Amino acid sequence: MYDVEKIIEQYFPKFDETNTALVAAKYALGSGGKRLRPTFALTCADMIKSVDDKVKRIAAAIEFLHTYSLIHDDLPAMDDDDIRRGKPSCHIAFGEATAILAGDALQNLAFEVLTDAENPSENYFKAINYIAKMSGANGMIYGQCLDINGNNLNEKQYLNMIKHKTANMFMACVVAPAIYFDIDNAQIGLLENFAENYGILFQIADDLSDNDGWVSQNTKKAITLAHNAYTNALTSLSMLKYDTEFFASALENIHSKLAH
Amino acid sequence: MYDVEKIIEQYFPKFDETNTALVAAKYALGSGGKRLRPTFALTCADMIKSVDDKVKRIAAAIEFLHTYSLIHDDLPAMDDDDIRRGKPSCHIAFGEATAILAGDALQNLAFEVLTDAENPSENYFKAINYIAKMSGANGMIYGQCLDINGNNLNEKQYLNMIKHKTANMFMACVVAPAIYFDIDNAQIGLLENFAENYGILFQIADDLSDNDGWVSQNTKKAITLAHNAYTNALTSLSMLKYDTEFFASALENIHSKLAH
Repeated sequence: MYDVEKIIEQYFPKFDETNTALVAAKYALGSGGKRLRPTFALTCADMIKSVDDKVKRIAAAIEFLHTYSLIHDDLPAMDDDDIRRGKPSCHIAFGEATAILAGDALQNLAFEVLTDAENPSENYFKAINYIAKMSGANGMIYGQCLDINGNNLNEKQYLNMIKHKTANMFMACVVAPAIYFDIDNAQIGLLENFAENYGILFQIADDLSDNDGWVSQNTKKAITLAHNAYTNALTSLSMLKYDTEFFASALENIHSKLAH
Repeated sequence: MYDVEKIIEQYFPKFDETNTALVAAKYALGSGGKRLRPTFALTCADMIKSVDDKVKRIAAAIEFLHTYSLIHDDLPAMDDDDIRRGKPSCHIAFGEATAILAGDALQNLAFEVLTDAENPSENYFKAINYIAKMSGANGMIYGQCLDINGNNLNEKQYLNMIKHKTANMFMACVVAPAIYFDIDNAQIGLLENFAENYGILFQIADDLSDNDGWVSQNTKKAITLAHNAYTNALTSLSMLKYDTEFFASALENIHSKLAH
């Protein structure tokens, strides 16, 4: 397996202690978590070809983007969460101003690390653009908008919200390495479809376990949506010409915990 | 001259009205301002060679980055400014949560627009990396950190703060096109030195006019620093092998307003 912690450490910049944004960013990054997203990126690259410097940059960048979104999401004006992964959230530990800057720094760092690679190929460049789109204003950030503005979502709106908020980043994890390695478009489409449905399943399972939002009022419908996402994801996996065992068990892992 | 407004409009994405982050980002972008930074980028590119699609992307991206920094800087936890360019600031008009997301969206958009170019060259890729570094955690964001944490700065600390907070983005404006056009390193060094000193002069003049921060307690020292920056910038300009008339008059424009 890959040493994800070491990769995250490796691409994090050196900094002066007066750089409180990076001190706070390192705190937020270091607070553990499953590192699911970078692991998806590394595993997907390995499944297709290998893990090289550019793949590691993709994995680190995705974790930086994910962590910045958590820091900003925890802010008082957003979800107002005091605890993240069992520790005081970033703004509790460092104050709101520093937490805003820490999130900004991590988003920037993702693109700095991605564009600091030697000998970039055109496909690597396209992979970076895909990550930008998935994490961006019509991707994950749009999902955050729909979430903060959506008090009375219907099923379709809920699904659209979690597709952007959660599934788009999982798509970045597996599709960016596939674009970088220039595999054929049909296989990229299958990976994209797997990741979108995995993300949907992941978020519904999370909302069911927290009894949160739309799901809390629509448990039965949510379980049906989750089962559909599971089936779609599994179908895509089965059509991929690679050894998808890791992704199949990641899928099974969530699915087995759903109420039937 | 260049139609900067049209360029900013051209690279701003299409969006759904439910995408309140982009609605708010467009509001913040549209609130006028001198468009000094994109104009610097376009003028520098034209001075060296020409304005093409990639140069326009660089100019638009820099304005997106500058605007995101203003949105986040105006937030209650930061400078708490209700007015920006004569209009309610973004969080006053749209609420804090949406303003945070609008800033995040604009930062992302900068890198999405930069990486969406056709046929990227290695030099274009390096130019993007330079923009990331100048706007990033050891660039502009570090300057913001030093600003929010610095109540009792000495002269050296003040200079270091404004170099990062303000000068780094001016460096991005002129150096990114120069890297993209692959001019020689000595000329890049002169452009970098011009922009750094222009940025220092610009920020000191701004602080003098607001009678703000360190400058308000050290007016005489500040004017000396500003004159030194002016002289350094002018020396670098005179050594450039291009027609630097635009930049010389931009410099003169600020310098002439300083107290002597």
